[in-house]
Amino acid sequence: MQETFCIMHFTVTLPDWVIEQQAQLPTCIPILEDRMRAVIRFSQLNIDHRTGGPFAAGVFERESGRLIAIGVNRVVPSNVSSAHAEVVALSLAQQSLHSWDLGSDSLPAMQLVVNWRPCAMCYGATIWSGIRSLVIAGSDDACERITGFDEGPIHPEWKSELAKRGIALHDGLLYQEAIRVFEAFRDGGQLVYNGRQGNG
Amino acid sequence: MQETFCIMHFTVTLPDWVIEQQAQLPTCIPILEDRMRAVIRFSQLNIDHRTGGPFAAGVFERESGRLIAIGVNRVVPSNVSSAHAEVVALSLAQQSLHSWDLGSDSLPAMQLVVNWRPCAMCYGATIWSGIRSLVIAGSDDACERITGFDEGPIHPEWKSELAKRGIALHDGLLYQEAIRVFEAFRDGGQLVYNGRQGNG
Repeated sequence: MQETFCIMHFTVTLPDWVIEQQAQLPTCIPILEDRMRAVIRFSQLNIDHRTGGPFAAGVFERESGRLIAIGVNRVVPSNVSSAHAEVVALSLAQQSLHSWDLGSDSLPAMQLVVNWRPCAMCYGATIWSGIRSLVIAGSDDACERITGFDEGPIHPEWKSELAKRGIALHDGLLYQEAIRVFEAFRDGGQLVYNGRQGNG
Repeated sequence: MQETFCIMHFTVTLPDWVIEQQAQLPTCIPILEDRMRAVIRFSQLNIDHRTGGPFAAGVFERESGRLIAIGVNRVVPSNVSSAHAEVVALSLAQQSLHSWDLGSDSLPAMQLVVNWRPCAMCYGATIWSGIRSLVIAGSDDACERITGFDEGPIHPEWKSELAKRGIALHDGLLYQEAIRVFEAFRDGGQLVYNGRQGNG
């Protein structure tokens, strides 16, 4: 018989500073660049507060820019290796809207804004979420090179595969601003968590 | 100013029937086929109880077969589109062991047993989890064909990419038993949730 305690749930929580920071944002952010600027700011705040990796994401109504949810990377504080910023933002948006499908007919089209391209996992998570628009600050190897974070084996045709599924991609918005956060992270000497490379 | 309530966390919970069912399992399951048999049984129970999709996963110590955590698909009941069985099992195992890295030097090698191949998202989640062994009942198109669930754009070389990262793959264990659950799901008329295909 199983003697150990049966773990029945897991919870991912945003750090407390998000409450105050989110309260300072307007209800709607109509200009796309301003949405990205807000997301990049959260990525910087997450390393300033040492509450996770240098990644943040926001779910917005695509047309109005109404902010639905902000997420930041919470892998290490939550002990959940899938708690990347995208997964956190998408899950919080789904809680807020009481829907596992952000592409539901009863909702306006939703947009995910992230301070870099999705890793192999978040790529799939983005597709399953129902969002219709993905906006990223960059997609080259700069993030991996500067921070040491592994992005994993994403599909080589990932951009066209998004298009096939009705998800419009906007790449390269505020690229330099995103890079500056990765450089700050690198210079801060914080933990780079990665899937292990062949040991064990 | 942001007027709406700021959602600060999300939680994924196993259904109550798991407590009783998990209590009936031995602490250790030394034979690999028996581990898969237990996982397939949970996939069937999840559709019998109508508590999620026809998918289950277990995290075990690879050598001893000690059961660390069982997960089942909880997308619809949790309103979390990433709450696939693998993500649930891996996250619960990480909670149980107080580690975001199941490949930590302080832990024995861990194994993930699933009743089918990972989707595009769970493939990345598997890599980031730190498990060293992935055991699946099958990886062809039978699951998509029978159930209608989309597996998403996984890397074409996903098997060799796992090997590169030190994750051994065992494919095809109790294939027919897994298929029977997918057929039961198809015949039960339950919801197939999928990323939406180009509308909106």
